[in-house]
Amino acid sequence: MTAPTLDILGIGNAIVDVLARADDAFLAARGLPKGGMRLIDTTEAEALYAAMGPGTESSGGSGANTCAVAAALGAKVGFLGKVADDGLGRIFAHDIKAAGVHFPTPPLTGGAPTARCLILVTPDAQRTMNTYLGACVSFGEADLDLDAIRSAKVVYLEGYLFDPPAAQAAFRAAAKAARAAGRKVAITLSDPFCVGRHRDAFRAFVRDDADILFANEAEILALYETGDFEEAAARAAQDVEIAALTRSEKGSVIVAGGERHAVPAQPTQVVDTTGAGDAYAAGFLAAWTNGQPLPECGRWGSIAAAEVISHFGARPQTDLKRLVA
Amino acid sequence: MTAPTLDILGIGNAIVDVLARADDAFLAARGLPKGGMRLIDTTEAEALYAAMGPGTESSGGSGANTCAVAAALGAKVGFLGKVADDGLGRIFAHDIKAAGVHFPTPPLTGGAPTARCLILVTPDAQRTMNTYLGACVSFGEADLDLDAIRSAKVVYLEGYLFDPPAAQAAFRAAAKAARAAGRKVAITLSDPFCVGRHRDAFRAFVRDDADILFANEAEILALYETGDFEEAAARAAQDVEIAALTRSEKGSVIVAGGERHAVPAQPTQVVDTTGAGDAYAAGFLAAWTNGQPLPECGRWGSIAAAEVISHFGARPQTDLKRLVA
Repeated sequence: MTAPTLDILGIGNAIVDVLARADDAFLAARGLPKGGMRLIDTTEAEALYAAMGPGTESSGGSGANTCAVAAALGAKVGFLGKVADDGLGRIFAHDIKAAGVHFPTPPLTGGAPTARCLILVTPDAQRTMNTYLGACVSFGEADLDLDAIRSAKVVYLEGYLFDPPAAQAAFRAAAKAARAAGRKVAITLSDPFCVGRHRDAFRAFVRDDADILFANEAEILALYETGDFEEAAARAAQDVEIAALTRSEKGSVIVAGGERHAVPAQPTQVVDTTGAGDAYAAGFLAAWTNGQPLPECGRWGSIAAAEVISHFGARPQTDLKRLVA
Repeated sequence: MTAPTLDILGIGNAIVDVLARADDAFLAARGLPKGGMRLIDTTEAEALYAAMGPGTESSGGSGANTCAVAAALGAKVGFLGKVADDGLGRIFAHDIKAAGVHFPTPPLTGGAPTARCLILVTPDAQRTMNTYLGACVSFGEADLDLDAIRSAKVVYLEGYLFDPPAAQAAFRAAAKAARAAGRKVAITLSDPFCVGRHRDAFRAFVRDDADILFANEAEILALYETGDFEEAAARAAQDVEIAALTRSEKGSVIVAGGERHAVPAQPTQVVDTTGAGDAYAAGFLAAWTNGQPLPECGRWGSIAAAEVISHFGARPQTDLKRLVA
């Protein structure tokens, strides 16, 4: 067994975000539930884009955001995710590489275009997300770079990748390869509705294939179908080695075997909460793979999340290494 | 002669802006003069993009920004400019149409890609622009939609379009067609360095082909090679029917025959001065084509400029019609 050369290898949807302003009437006329994330098909994506106002494009994707933040904290990071060989795909690839992340997945040619999330920002600053998965749907076991997976201390899996049909099998194969190489497997639940769509698969994966679990309060309650956070935390502690559960301004709770640590949130001026959970997981894993104790992992997570919610966009804009030092 | 169906028909470079953060050392290592706008070729564009940090894409182009702002003020606007049939070209076309602007120019196929401006934002908030003209270089007389030109009260020409070689001839042809149809021709000088690169051509065009001239202080001084603003304003008044000369926080001066109006700037919190001149021209022309007197045209210009410099990005984010009402 060779020593790991990466700290974190993320696997997730490779998405470019397209942000535009919209008013409540625009959402109402199209039946878009405010604040939610919906999956849309090609036809709806084209119709919605044509109707949307002028946009701003930037790379996104939950797992990719985590990888970019972890790299900014000094971790050695790789990412696997499927773009197409098109303009948005080149933007995604540039941005993740420019963030210092190894990105070996070849682009899809001759198939669906690069995934995009059409995000409508209403005057109340809420974001309504409409995700067209495009090329991500083709991500499967053939895209698993097993050398990269075996070379990382932790494989980090984005729960949203349970939506594209081929990816669940790839998740299990990635987890198996990682564990066979003596590595750890982390997963984030991503979204309570995503948990609802795939609850049985998530529960089985968390119990059988994962070592580290990230979830916010709504997600962990959805996973265990309970309204009681303490009960959910106790069940998570039975299922995984470490569970890091975020609770917005109340901070996070880390349960690991008999240990339990409550970590406060970092005070900040909230501008845009997008990517808070992604950044928390990044900070946690960057510290954990750096050999830090669990409370310090939580502190790095809180600091990274605070930075990301203090401005628009889910990737860091200031020197995170300095913030955690 | 039929009645005009458009208020303003702009002609300019069709550019997508790519913004990334950079430090002073990055600029110094590449010899990029801070705060300037340089033209770069394909090789340098690719090398600079590969070296740049993660970016944010949004539609730009000076003349296109003016058209978007004028449309937001209720003017009926068209734009002619050349994108390629690629991802950035589709983004540009979507955004200008979503701004309410008629955009009939067909994309270039099989040639250079869509133009982009690689903008490096340093910690002091200055912007260093590196423009790859790409498909814009192929804009020529064949792209002049003469029906659209003849249908607009004013044809508005972006000075930056003096850089692509075929466009100067197209400018003169557009001006000739507009005047033959009884319309007015407006031009903005765009940039003192652009004036320096093409001074003789600019002077001849302003004197022989233009009715309305937009310039900031540095540009009008560069055009007439003088250090004296009053002298430059007097010479502009001889060359064109109306000259609207902007002076940043000192407001603007409008000279028209014997008339002279000083218009104050609108107070605002300055966040990003990009697009101030573009927005001023938009406000001025939206009011002028709406039959407003010159001081009111200047006031609309000041209000539009103040809105655009109060946030990042050169296109409006609030209801401009309400602001001028």
